[in-house]
Amino acid sequence: MESERLEKQIQFIVEIDKLKQIYRQTYLMDGSRRENSVEHSWHLALMTVLLAEYSPSESLDLFRVLKMVLIHDLVEIDAGDTLCYDEKARRSQKSRELMAADRIFNLLPPDQAGKMRDLWDEFEASLTPEAGFARAIDRMQPVLHNYHTRGAAWRKHGVTRDQVVTRNHEIEKAAPELWDYIHALIERAVEKGYLLP
Amino acid sequence: MESERLEKQIQFIVEIDKLKQIYRQTYLMDGSRRENSVEHSWHLALMTVLLAEYSPSESLDLFRVLKMVLIHDLVEIDAGDTLCYDEKARRSQKSRELMAADRIFNLLPPDQAGKMRDLWDEFEASLTPEAGFARAIDRMQPVLHNYHTRGAAWRKHGVTRDQVVTRNHEIEKAAPELWDYIHALIERAVEKGYLLP
Repeated sequence: MESERLEKQIQFIVEIDKLKQIYRQTYLMDGSRRENSVEHSWHLALMTVLLAEYSPSESLDLFRVLKMVLIHDLVEIDAGDTLCYDEKARRSQKSRELMAADRIFNLLPPDQAGKMRDLWDEFEASLTPEAGFARAIDRMQPVLHNYHTRGAAWRKHGVTRDQVVTRNHEIEKAAPELWDYIHALIERAVEKGYLLP
Repeated sequence: MESERLEKQIQFIVEIDKLKQIYRQTYLMDGSRRENSVEHSWHLALMTVLLAEYSPSESLDLFRVLKMVLIHDLVEIDAGDTLCYDEKARRSQKSRELMAADRIFNLLPPDQAGKMRDLWDEFEASLTPEAGFARAIDRMQPVLHNYHTRGAAWRKHGVTRDQVVTRNHEIEKAAPELWDYIHALIERAVEKGYLLP
């Protein structure tokens, strides 16, 4: 194994440490602080393993889903976290994230850069059952966090029920039973005053 | 799918959020703060994917390694993080962690509790190539962090070269080339004054 290859891999491993400092809008379950994108990604990975049985796909490649959720936010190292209900920021999000993907994945040796980029592109394109399931889990996790913090991030940003339903409805196709659960949680959040009607 | 099952899964998913608040001795690569066990686990997962080629095992089940590194620290929710060079704390570590494993994994439905516990036991027993590789990556990551923070945690605790070599030598069997790299990094750390000779 040439050491130049390992040096590149280590350089990437050191670089991605920066994602630990990208804070999201979502709060930890106890409301004590916002969570960062690494914590979010780890949580998605465990949710993927535990909730895979709710995918209607009988041949879901869970290993690929896992890799997708682990890397899907790496572009935020350069592009930052974009609030999903901020329409203005979302217009420039795609181009910012594409530039970030070009830089960050290419720190790796070319073969691994290509594989990582393919996984990231697959997640973004959302055309495969694996991407669909990864995205459903990515949608679902912040709803759980919001519900258990009595709507901390929702209330801070004046988010409404319709916004949350529109954004999360994509869960239904990838995991109908998880959508039923999340949908009920959203309605309960409105009843409890965690979310604007 | 009975909803009692999903309720248990969600309860576990909410519970493990607490691992985001278990801080380790290791500092982020920029030295700004200590990292927590979730950040550490995510980093191991990506390192596992990227460095698997250094395992001499030709049939390494990477998916299982990934699951192991993602869950290996969950017991710290109850047992806390134990400094690896604190001999007194390490004596009670095993019994504290076993109690934690009994409580935490059993929040899940029995079939999933059993699978998670098997993965955790496998990591702890360190008898399979998968556990060996997961543990090698678990050893390697803090050395990278220490080196890139000019020995922040090593200097704080007065750790010596021999302690680090003894602890990390286990990497050699699971991934000889990674051990060569880490061994050289340890020697360079001594030369630079990051680590006591």
